Amino acid sequence: MSASVPIAGNRFVIIGGASLVGSATAGELLDHGAAEVVLFDNFAFGSNAAIAHLQDHPRLKLVRGDVMRIAELLRVTEGAAGVLQLAAYMTLSMDRDPWGGLDVNIRGVQNVLEACRVNKVRKVVFASSNATYGYGPGVAGELVESTPFHSMGAPPAAILYGASKIIGEQLCRDAFRKWGQDYVVLRYSTVYGERQHYRAANALYIIETMDKVRRGEPPQVFGDGSETKHFVYVGDLARANRMAFESAATDVAVNTSGPEPITTLELVRLVTELAGGGPAPEFVGNDGKVRLTSGGAFRIAHEEAARTIGWTPEVTMREGLRRLIAWRDGNEAAAG
Amino acid sequence: MSASVPIAGNRFVIIGGASLVGSATAGELLDHGAAEVVLFDNFAFGSNAAIAHLQDHPRLKLVRGDVMRIAELLRVTEGAAGVLQLAAYMTLSMDRDPWGGLDVNIRGVQNVLEACRVNKVRKVVFASSNATYGYGPGVAGELVESTPFHSMGAPPAAILYGASKIIGEQLCRDAFRKWGQDYVVLRYSTVYGERQHYRAANALYIIETMDKVRRGEPPQVFGDGSETKHFVYVGDLARANRMAFESAATDVAVNTSGPEPITTLELVRLVTELAGGGPAPEFVGNDGKVRLTSGGAFRIAHEEAARTIGWTPEVTMREGLRRLIAWRDGNEAAAG
Repeated sequence: MSASVPIAGNRFVIIGGASLVGSATAGELLDHGAAEVVLFDNFAFGSNAAIAHLQDHPRLKLVRGDVMRIAELLRVTEGAAGVLQLAAYMTLSMDRDPWGGLDVNIRGVQNVLEACRVNKVRKVVFASSNATYGYGPGVAGELVESTPFHSMGAPPAAILYGASKIIGEQLCRDAFRKWGQDYVVLRYSTVYGERQHYRAANALYIIETMDKVRRGEPPQVFGDGSETKHFVYVGDLARANRMAFESAATDVAVNTSGPEPITTLELVRLVTELAGGGPAPEFVGNDGKVRLTSGGAFRIAHEEAARTIGWTPEVTMREGLRRLIAWRDGNEAAAG
Repeated sequence: MSASVPIAGNRFVIIGGASLVGSATAGELLDHGAAEVVLFDNFAFGSNAAIAHLQDHPRLKLVRGDVMRIAELLRVTEGAAGVLQLAAYMTLSMDRDPWGGLDVNIRGVQNVLEACRVNKVRKVVFASSNATYGYGPGVAGELVESTPFHSMGAPPAAILYGASKIIGEQLCRDAFRKWGQDYVVLRYSTVYGERQHYRAANALYIIETMDKVRRGEPPQVFGDGSETKHFVYVGDLARANRMAFESAATDVAVNTSGPEPITTLELVRLVTELAGGGPAPEFVGNDGKVRLTSGGAFRIAHEEAARTIGWTPEVTMREGLRRLIAWRDGNEAAAG
């Protein structure tokens, strides 16, 4: 039996849906004919701003609820063909509140899977992370799905986050083995794009750079600027989520990264150029903030996602940043 | 300020104490003049058999309690200079009950650390595991403290266990950073020795082999027998726990493995010899049980433990197995 879940005519629930990825995926599923898309969120990290553009959509429903309250999940997943599990603490919030973070990232996933078991949800898509490859100098070269988890020397909260995502993935595998729960794990790169939030340490760097350039201040580059980042555009991820439901694949975990990695220096130059120019970057030392520095140059390989769910990223950093800057400019104009 | 906690005259609490390692460590601490040693256990995995030999000791106290009930930890750790955190689900029980296992291995550690914070416990020794290096063909050569976590292809429960130990370690690091909690993480190899229990998949293999040889049946070797195991004798670990409290070291994680690794074929031959002879081993394929097979040959390096806490393993497999066999023979004779 194929694990394919067509979008048209089916009901989907997005846990942690009032978010950058959640709202983009909701739009993608609605555009492909979903009968209903439910955004389930406790608004701890989610926001009305992230979903304002969808709120009048006739097939979109917003449900306030919490992944830690399984009764709410049991109700919201009734009749759902697919569930996308996005709800998570990321590294910065894990640092502030590891008790809450481990609850949501581990028990939350167990609760979602249990609700899917009870309500016979056909497929779960679980948002994992390239944090499952860890941090530090060991993270170099091609990062493929079998790359191990490096943690030596990384901040505790970053390791807690990465390990909690490893556990979330394994809970999906366990559910597949124990009751045949079909699932696809997508290991997201750092997401950026319109309606960008301020939560993720790496994505925040784009916004900070943009803000500095706009204010006419020199953007900051840490170290020599050769450090690699490998982002993914939010629209590409929304498409990956949709294709993970549609594909026949199950019991797999694949990377979903953008077309190419970029160094921080290239990123700062590109943002400056797209913003219409600005001062040259300032090279600074470490300022003591939690920054998830990778050691060497790396690329997060997404070829397995092409083979498994037929997905390839399409939006280059240049195009994605252009859209992000245009959105922010429009947004600030509207607010001003 | 040194993080050294002398044993003589101090009170220690062993969480998960009614166990192989707990009882041996209690004996070690009492022999070195501890004012009191409290064994805290919910007897889910612990047993009276493991601690029967200590029960009349005037400075030993047994407290029934659960790491999931923080109120009980707050009470039992009052006035303790050191706490040894052993309570954990291992892989086989994690497979049966991942909800309970993740609770105990993660929230349990948080509860213990929080109780230590409130009661100003000077030092925590946390029992981690070489499971933090993972499983499969990537686990080869010298396993040192910076070796990453390999998980590709391993059973979900094994990965859940290893990742839960990685999280436990990071919770200790986080406690050190946030409130200066001194701690030492010891990454135990598979433990064996007198009062051996039947919980750990690898240690169980020793007992199964011994039982088969005793019954005159051929012991089983999986694959070609070249697979590496690296055990540690329980008395050596008890000494490592004691030295971790005594040493000035803090905020470190070190391997505690036996003198040398051994292949399964060597192990089976050694057990057969020490048991007074028996049939030649039978080479069998995989029987479908959860067996934590390593891929290549490896050695768990314990040199960092020598540098950090001054500990070196002393008991060879030959001597440790001799003691285990003598204990089992005496035990069965007593029971018969």
